[in-house]
Amino acid sequence: MDYEGLLADRTELMKTNAIREILKVVSKPGMVSVAGGIPSEKSFPMEIIKELTDKVLTKYATNAFQYDLTEGFIPLREQLVGLLAKRGIITDVDGINVASGSQGVLDGVAKLMVSKGDKIALEAPTYLGALSAFNPYEPEYIRMDMDDQGLVPESLEETLKSHNIKFIYLVPTFQNPTGRTLTLERRIQIARIIEKYNALLVEDDPYSALRYRGEDIPPIKTMAPDNVIYISTLSKVFAPGLRIGFYVAPKFISQWMVLVKQGVDLHTSTFNQALAAEYLEGNHLDTHLPNIIRLYKPKQEAMLAAIKKNMPTDFTCSPSDGGMFLWVTGPKGFDMMELYYKCIENKVAFVPGKFFYTDEAEGIETMRLNYTMADEKTIEMAIGKITDSIKTMSS
Amino acid sequence: MDYEGLLADRTELMKTNAIREILKVVSKPGMVSVAGGIPSEKSFPMEIIKELTDKVLTKYATNAFQYDLTEGFIPLREQLVGLLAKRGIITDVDGINVASGSQGVLDGVAKLMVSKGDKIALEAPTYLGALSAFNPYEPEYIRMDMDDQGLVPESLEETLKSHNIKFIYLVPTFQNPTGRTLTLERRIQIARIIEKYNALLVEDDPYSALRYRGEDIPPIKTMAPDNVIYISTLSKVFAPGLRIGFYVAPKFISQWMVLVKQGVDLHTSTFNQALAAEYLEGNHLDTHLPNIIRLYKPKQEAMLAAIKKNMPTDFTCSPSDGGMFLWVTGPKGFDMMELYYKCIENKVAFVPGKFFYTDEAEGIETMRLNYTMADEKTIEMAIGKITDSIKTMSS
Repeated sequence: MDYEGLLADRTELMKTNAIREILKVVSKPGMVSVAGGIPSEKSFPMEIIKELTDKVLTKYATNAFQYDLTEGFIPLREQLVGLLAKRGIITDVDGINVASGSQGVLDGVAKLMVSKGDKIALEAPTYLGALSAFNPYEPEYIRMDMDDQGLVPESLEETLKSHNIKFIYLVPTFQNPTGRTLTLERRIQIARIIEKYNALLVEDDPYSALRYRGEDIPPIKTMAPDNVIYISTLSKVFAPGLRIGFYVAPKFISQWMVLVKQGVDLHTSTFNQALAAEYLEGNHLDTHLPNIIRLYKPKQEAMLAAIKKNMPTDFTCSPSDGGMFLWVTGPKGFDMMELYYKCIENKVAFVPGKFFYTDEAEGIETMRLNYTMADEKTIEMAIGKITDSIKTMSS
Repeated sequence: MDYEGLLADRTELMKTNAIREILKVVSKPGMVSVAGGIPSEKSFPMEIIKELTDKVLTKYATNAFQYDLTEGFIPLREQLVGLLAKRGIITDVDGINVASGSQGVLDGVAKLMVSKGDKIALEAPTYLGALSAFNPYEPEYIRMDMDDQGLVPESLEETLKSHNIKFIYLVPTFQNPTGRTLTLERRIQIARIIEKYNALLVEDDPYSALRYRGEDIPPIKTMAPDNVIYISTLSKVFAPGLRIGFYVAPKFISQWMVLVKQGVDLHTSTFNQALAAEYLEGNHLDTHLPNIIRLYKPKQEAMLAAIKKNMPTDFTCSPSDGGMFLWVTGPKGFDMMELYYKCIENKVAFVPGKFFYTDEAEGIETMRLNYTMADEKTIEMAIGKITDSIKTMSS
């Protein structure tokens, strides 16, 4: 039968993205990769997992296996109150909803707010997973300038002046793909701008706990609470396979988000939420987070040092104090796709930065490097090999 | 700020449904309820859960906590091959995809196929969770006749002749809300009709394992494999809180469904899929299913007997050999909403059947009764109280 005729209009925007194809290359034998984007399995608190599962079985018994509230498992939300307070976000159990990963929140906000042609304002470059959440709702994207200090506030204001924007989407801290962090000064400016224009900001914060140096910077949510949906996740500080995301939104929006989520998956796994509740209640996050940072920090430092030592001086790396990625920009007009193909031949993989832009002409000379998955020696080897390939191009 | 102006057009169809309000009443003190729709916690295999979690931690270790394939955890899909073969559905690992509950599949099929105004054909009455999955995609519903033998094939053929239908949605076995099962003869007829009209059927099968008497009837999927997306779940035979659904679809559709799911939640909890894999691999389902049937069968029998003994003879119950629900139809024109309010005063709750129809004028004289949540004595008391309330209406 003709299956193609059954597809909804929205599938037009959902074609397989090129980055998937790129990541397939990574698994080829002998390939050295800094292309990935996931946490190291060494970051999972395996030493206490059994204690947690036993605790959940004793404490919650059948409740951990029954249908539960769409809003989220109450003992987890109780624990998240404290976690959020440490980030400066003061709310209560009713103010926090759980989702199936941050991805579930991104799908939910777009499903709730975006009709075909509605506008979403994005940093350029932006997080690809957000695009795959938003695309099915057929938005139009308005790209905004960013630099090493994050989103340029003037670009945001210009965008809000010229367009009717449903929401702004930002990853202000240790952004994927750039590792950049929006400065405190700019956060304050941005908070004033969104209040001035009655604009809604979706502030996605998966990485802020992974800080390797410097001081925490408060979320924009703390500066303009009525104008921000703050999203975070336990994927980077507990375990991504459990799919636990959460968010704090204005009440009107979170009530609607619950209705949206009911249609999508009824609720997030009760058992996994109970595990997360025990992880937080036992203060295991506080104990374990330093281990994760001890794991990643030397990797980031190794990568930064290798870039500085090896790469030509016209390849610059955006400063980054945490997260999982570094962002390298080559000389103007340098074709990172050509380098990518050379690197694949040379058995090293990275992700060309152009894929993180909604405008195809942008980001030609950029690349994203991940340092969480490889060990320091492999990272050095990868940067060495990439540099070798760069040299074959300039010769 | 004006949040209401941010809502997408699709929210128009997503207003809070009345059944939620009805179910809130259930939790009031002293209320006797047959209004619920969830499995008994006594049906969960708690005696082996600890063994399963320990096994998963030993066998899969960090893999159970890492990001995984959107298609589903391979060891679980390997086990589902055998489970599906027992139902007559012959496929391989690549033919089976996992989702976050059946609900995740229902959201996915509608998201993939339904543009605003596209038509979905439904049994009248139909499963409410399907409507909450479909509504956000703004379909038009075409209702089809059903009787105690399930969907009337002539009504399906008439629908396919007169309308351009994106897909047909059916719960052929022990339907929610009616407990009815589509006969083998009609399944064969329906398979021929959908092939003749090149129509796609979404066959939702959450309950078929919960059979209390009679012989299994093969899914329509076995009779028209290219025209059917077969959906099932472990929610009724393992634990609903783990949110493990799965489906077998034509390749073209399942490939697209993977792209859809990537945007929604990346993948279903790896840990829970690993638990489900071990539940099946250890043959625990085969051992435990008879316990679930031993739990529910006497409840169903108690309810059937109480209806027969107590209710006026013009209140008829649809025959049902399994599942979780019974469906009672009162005399023509009998107002089940009026009865509902009387029953609430009398401290007993059920769900008026009209909520399961897309056409507001239908189902006025029907009611859904759930027997999985209460014990036999409570079930008898509930039917007695409902009958008392009926008697106050006819007097």
